[in-house]
Amino acid sequence: MKNKLEFAKQIVLEAGDYLRLHLHDDLMISKKTGPTDLVTQMDQQVQKDLVEKITNRYPEDRIFAEEDGLRSPISEGSVWVIDPIDGTNNFVTQKEDFAVMVAYFEDGIGQFGLIYDVMRDHLFYGGGEFPVYRNEVELTPFVDQPLEDFLIASNVGMLEKNDWGMADLGMDSLGIRVYGSAGISFSKILSGGILAYFSYIWPWDYAAAAIMGDQLGYTVLNLNGDKPNYQTVEPIMMVPKVKLTEIQTYLKKGRS
Amino acid sequence: MKNKLEFAKQIVLEAGDYLRLHLHDDLMISKKTGPTDLVTQMDQQVQKDLVEKITNRYPEDRIFAEEDGLRSPISEGSVWVIDPIDGTNNFVTQKEDFAVMVAYFEDGIGQFGLIYDVMRDHLFYGGGEFPVYRNEVELTPFVDQPLEDFLIASNVGMLEKNDWGMADLGMDSLGIRVYGSAGISFSKILSGGILAYFSYIWPWDYAAAAIMGDQLGYTVLNLNGDKPNYQTVEPIMMVPKVKLTEIQTYLKKGRS
Repeated sequence: MKNKLEFAKQIVLEAGDYLRLHLHDDLMISKKTGPTDLVTQMDQQVQKDLVEKITNRYPEDRIFAEEDGLRSPISEGSVWVIDPIDGTNNFVTQKEDFAVMVAYFEDGIGQFGLIYDVMRDHLFYGGGEFPVYRNEVELTPFVDQPLEDFLIASNVGMLEKNDWGMADLGMDSLGIRVYGSAGISFSKILSGGILAYFSYIWPWDYAAAAIMGDQLGYTVLNLNGDKPNYQTVEPIMMVPKVKLTEIQTYLKKGRS
Repeated sequence: MKNKLEFAKQIVLEAGDYLRLHLHDDLMISKKTGPTDLVTQMDQQVQKDLVEKITNRYPEDRIFAEEDGLRSPISEGSVWVIDPIDGTNNFVTQKEDFAVMVAYFEDGIGQFGLIYDVMRDHLFYGGGEFPVYRNEVELTPFVDQPLEDFLIASNVGMLEKNDWGMADLGMDSLGIRVYGSAGISFSKILSGGILAYFSYIWPWDYAAAAIMGDQLGYTVLNLNGDKPNYQTVEPIMMVPKVKLTEIQTYLKKGRS
């Protein structure tokens, strides 16, 4: 498994190199499910490169990925979950605050995850049998403090409508941030800079964070408190296990 | 004036060096106007250092600064406007997404401004008679595109209450971001990654951005469309001049 993780680090770093090299290429932008759901030829190219490298090296392994409808269920066999560019709208407009994410499962059990914040050059990796690192720094588990001492990250729609009590939770915290990228938000949690994150997201958005977070005292659940289904889009949270009960009082009150 | 700008660049970079060097020092955190309005000994030390260097070099010059009640009006004489740490809550919790800001006025006319995104090591400087740079890169003026192609940055309270139509404006844009720092939000506008920013802020929050933005096709106004008063907290926007009329249709509809 150590070799497989080293291989994963290498291909994710190569994906970041590719994106930095082509950062100012002309983009061919398409809209998927709506006017703000963008995809570019870079998302497709990065996914294609990752999938090719994986299937060349591990021909038996399967893929669950954002683009092109690759949806092998994580529950069966050796499955790589891929988000080639998380935060595509930031990638298109800002050229920062986007991430490459990869997670690896065997028969439904997460073995390791990787989030690469490309422009900060921060590679988060580990989980399963491995400690979690940001580059060469081993990350430390969550340390509890009062809610009011922590920032929260959230999807903007939840905030605007106070869905799941998100605005109320924000009011009792140190403040709310909206970064427009699950990967960037999760990486800030793993670094200890953000308490929790809430959004409507897909398995490729949360798989890597869930595997790494488990090592550091966090849990990834849907907002009903159940395990994510690893199949469809759901309202998802990543929160410290010791803060779950307190946070759920807001979610329950705010449930529409 | 060129010498004065070079001096300003030097002291702002030194402030950033100080903050990076002391990034993991124990913080003495106080609350100013409310539970989320934090100040630390670092804000006070950085301001003290900046003020000392300015008044040693330019004994006639005056100061308008965030901490310690230094409030010489910008309209009279040579006045430095200082925000020692913009985004203190990010500084405390995340150790990133905070900025040092300085602006310089003569008899009310902005001569130059500086925003230093400390952890990205991006120094934005210029305005008045100077071009605007991010480090060694000269920045280019705003290029118009449809609203739906741009991200917006906003204060979270305006979003939650749809004050000034902020949620409606967000719905017609590519998305909303909340960074918790005026300086970081403005620097993203100057880089072309964000269209506009809206928040309840003070002169030290917007002075540097207003001077630099003017060179690049942006204007800083209060949300009634008037010039900021450079004295008190106000609802403020920085928007491209060519987008002002379109954006004001949202502000007017949403005014409470």
